[in-house]
Amino acid sequence: MMIIKRIKQVKKIIGLKRRQGKTIGFVPTMGSLHEGHVSLVRIAKKKSDFVVVSIFVNPTQFGPSEDFKRYPRDLKRDCRLLKKEGVDVVFFPPVKEIYPSGYKTYVEVTSLSNVLCGASRPGHFRGVTTVVLKLFNIIKPDIAVFGIKDFQQCAILKKMAKDLDLDIKILTGPTVREKDGLAMSSRNIYLSKTHRQNAAVLSQALRWAKKAVQAGVHDADGIIKKMTAMIQKKQGKIDYIETVDQDSLARVKKLQSNVLIVLAVYFGKTRLIDNIVV
Amino acid sequence: MMIIKRIKQVKKIIGLKRRQGKTIGFVPTMGSLHEGHVSLVRIAKKKSDFVVVSIFVNPTQFGPSEDFKRYPRDLKRDCRLLKKEGVDVVFFPPVKEIYPSGYKTYVEVTSLSNVLCGASRPGHFRGVTTVVLKLFNIIKPDIAVFGIKDFQQCAILKKMAKDLDLDIKILTGPTVREKDGLAMSSRNIYLSKTHRQNAAVLSQALRWAKKAVQAGVHDADGIIKKMTAMIQKKQGKIDYIETVDQDSLARVKKLQSNVLIVLAVYFGKTRLIDNIVV
Repeated sequence: MMIIKRIKQVKKIIGLKRRQGKTIGFVPTMGSLHEGHVSLVRIAKKKSDFVVVSIFVNPTQFGPSEDFKRYPRDLKRDCRLLKKEGVDVVFFPPVKEIYPSGYKTYVEVTSLSNVLCGASRPGHFRGVTTVVLKLFNIIKPDIAVFGIKDFQQCAILKKMAKDLDLDIKILTGPTVREKDGLAMSSRNIYLSKTHRQNAAVLSQALRWAKKAVQAGVHDADGIIKKMTAMIQKKQGKIDYIETVDQDSLARVKKLQSNVLIVLAVYFGKTRLIDNIVV
Repeated sequence: MMIIKRIKQVKKIIGLKRRQGKTIGFVPTMGSLHEGHVSLVRIAKKKSDFVVVSIFVNPTQFGPSEDFKRYPRDLKRDCRLLKKEGVDVVFFPPVKEIYPSGYKTYVEVTSLSNVLCGASRPGHFRGVTTVVLKLFNIIKPDIAVFGIKDFQQCAILKKMAKDLDLDIKILTGPTVREKDGLAMSSRNIYLSKTHRQNAAVLSQALRWAKKAVQAGVHDADGIIKKMTAMIQKKQGKIDYIETVDQDSLARVKKLQSNVLIVLAVYFGKTRLIDNIVV
């Protein structure tokens, strides 16, 4: 497994593989890898000949008061994990390699980017689409794999790929969960012991909501009210709980199958997200 | 020469040529071609094996009160011209092919885009960078050629290509002029006979300024004042005359070699641009 820091070098190696007729699979990450990332790597391995994983904590997707600096980083552990999975290249560029001095170009998927997490984190998705487009241009993968835990991110990146005529298939992998149901996230390590225990309520509330809809409850407001109560009882501070259309992310008032329930909740200072399709 | 309207089809044909080892040259245009465009096509022919010219009057780069609807269109004449030059493919997509319903993704080169023409035409360069990035993704050229008459556009597109790690060499071709010095432009046909005659003052003023700097005049304000008087005497309404750095487009007060003088001037309702490097 090669660990490469420079754009020029990674382009060269991947170009060589492409000319050999190999298909390229790509999993962009911010490192601090967990079983969720591993599951995406396994999808990439299955669907392509040569797998590249990027590890880049992207400053442009963090707000000024967010956790860019303290975001967990552990390259050694990450590489050990990726090597075991048979990854071919780890692309690990310094910030200045991706955003050299005088950097000015940004890409934005309008309207999808300013609801839900985009409303709470202004500029976040502009940072995500910009770095992912750059990484796509550098790696030029045939397929790229993202975790559906970040549902809005997946919707926005699929839209970007379609709108910009990229020849890249965006695949999504299911959310991997801890035993008690908490969605795996690199940010879970921020949680205190109590918050960690309480945070299991997020997936419980989502599963409860799905069952309620399947049992014939269609009123979004009622469902959201009940979920809010469940979560607040466990000290969660609601950022948002919404019921939306999977493609447009527009709010849906009458719940039926295929509607997406999405939430963002603070436990202490840690913001967690999760979602379920009912 | 093939004339192709669909993205899928043009991707297929160019993909085939690329796999045959041919380099792809690309000249994006809005049609209504003149000798300026032809000179760019000749550069592309010289520098690549397979030349694609796009003809697309791009709605997203026109303001609501601008001339999108009346912008001159003459596909037959354009194709006759391009065939004579040995162009391989004319890509002529309908608006709905480039911007299908629900289109949402835009790319922007910040700071370079809101000065000069960008200040007078808000959103113009966001439209330009978006359509050019899309065309680049569709055509995947090795080189692309743009006219230096649109100096700011060239600076912005070079920056975009660098920032987004595109493997495309952006080349520029010199401004082609009428006998009296007026820079060729598809919009010149809008001019009344008197305005057409008077418009020659733009290149005269620019050449006068260059000579003045070469003769040792360094005061930008003085030069601009004199140019303004020359142009106003010929009924030109100044949008802007500025002296700027070629890369950053930042204003330069002390004129010396390599400074760029740029201007935009209305004759009647027709807005003309021109520039010179001193």
